[in-house]
Amino acid sequence: MILLDKLQWRYATKAMNGKKVSQDKIDTILKAAQLAPTSSGLQPFEILVVTNQEIKEKIRAIGYDQPQITDCSHLLVFAAWDTYTEERINAFFDLTNEIRGGSNEGWESYRQHLLNTYPKRESEINFTHASKQAYIAFGLAIAAAAFEGVDCTPMEGFDAEALDVVLELKEKGLRSAVILPVGYRDEDQDWLANLPKVRKSMKELVTNIK
Amino acid sequence: MILLDKLQWRYATKAMNGKKVSQDKIDTILKAAQLAPTSSGLQPFEILVVTNQEIKEKIRAIGYDQPQITDCSHLLVFAAWDTYTEERINAFFDLTNEIRGGSNEGWESYRQHLLNTYPKRESEINFTHASKQAYIAFGLAIAAAAFEGVDCTPMEGFDAEALDVVLELKEKGLRSAVILPVGYRDEDQDWLANLPKVRKSMKELVTNIK
Repeated sequence: MILLDKLQWRYATKAMNGKKVSQDKIDTILKAAQLAPTSSGLQPFEILVVTNQEIKEKIRAIGYDQPQITDCSHLLVFAAWDTYTEERINAFFDLTNEIRGGSNEGWESYRQHLLNTYPKRESEINFTHASKQAYIAFGLAIAAAAFEGVDCTPMEGFDAEALDVVLELKEKGLRSAVILPVGYRDEDQDWLANLPKVRKSMKELVTNIK
Repeated sequence: MILLDKLQWRYATKAMNGKKVSQDKIDTILKAAQLAPTSSGLQPFEILVVTNQEIKEKIRAIGYDQPQITDCSHLLVFAAWDTYTEERINAFFDLTNEIRGGSNEGWESYRQHLLNTYPKRESEINFTHASKQAYIAFGLAIAAAAFEGVDCTPMEGFDAEALDVVLELKEKGLRSAVILPVGYRDEDQDWLANLPKVRKSMKELVTNIK
């Protein structure tokens, strides 16, 4: 299947060549993230797309000096909601009613259920839950990049609190979850470019319960 | 792009018709999960594929009685490592050296770095970290299902601790993270089948920092 071929082709690019990715391809990658399913449909995250070179330099400084952060074309920052609030939950249910033209009892009862539970939980629990949803979108963005023949490097190795300061995320009620430099591989400089992919066997990964 | 078309086509199926999905298609979905990138490449999760109807019934009973759990063809349970251990970390680095035919100082130093940090952290922190990696694979499995014209329902609504007991996950050092009934939609019975997809606008999702 073509999706598997693309997933085989991609790898965590260690060196990028600075070449720009077209806006069309970036839009496709972001659209895949938009279409990702999330818990209750809340989409509890935003994506910051950094092309400003000075800001990329600042992020590299708090990202273990990983060169892809500055040598990528676009740096995607997946930032999850710091917590679930009544306002955020209502905005989603209202949007749904607007798009679908009306509501019903079951749906409104589900709204009340979330309003009665999520905002009362500790913000750390809510942020972790929101981050997991961002990781689904992150996976789909990676798949879309591979589909477009664009390289990327899934990255957790950065100082999340420092990144929140650089991008002023706290003020937006967000916290950085994971980042994705997107660009093109520099095969000559990338030690990983031609090494075989390592995955545990299907036998180790999967257990059938028949 | 074809990937976006497939993601538009899919939705969180609320009613399934019990029809079986071919083993080929299931293998493709699982293969996409296998190819998912994960932090340091550790793949800290396993996937249990439940087709046993009695066990599906037990899971439905602890899954808010959601009918897809029994009416699906295959129920995929993504179970993350309960913690990172030296043994698990070493197994991955050893596998890498085996596949790539040798090692080097940088790689072995990275192994030591993980051995010196991950196993010492609280298991809850490690499980959360492992779960996030499982969510990336979960996203790719959902994309692969859509590609194969197979429906699925991403699901967090179940009693995770009870599911761990049903599937004897604790004994394997695993904890359930998220589940995915895979099958075919029953359009006549599914209230969601023909409703428009709800997503926040790209303007709300994305901020450009130029």
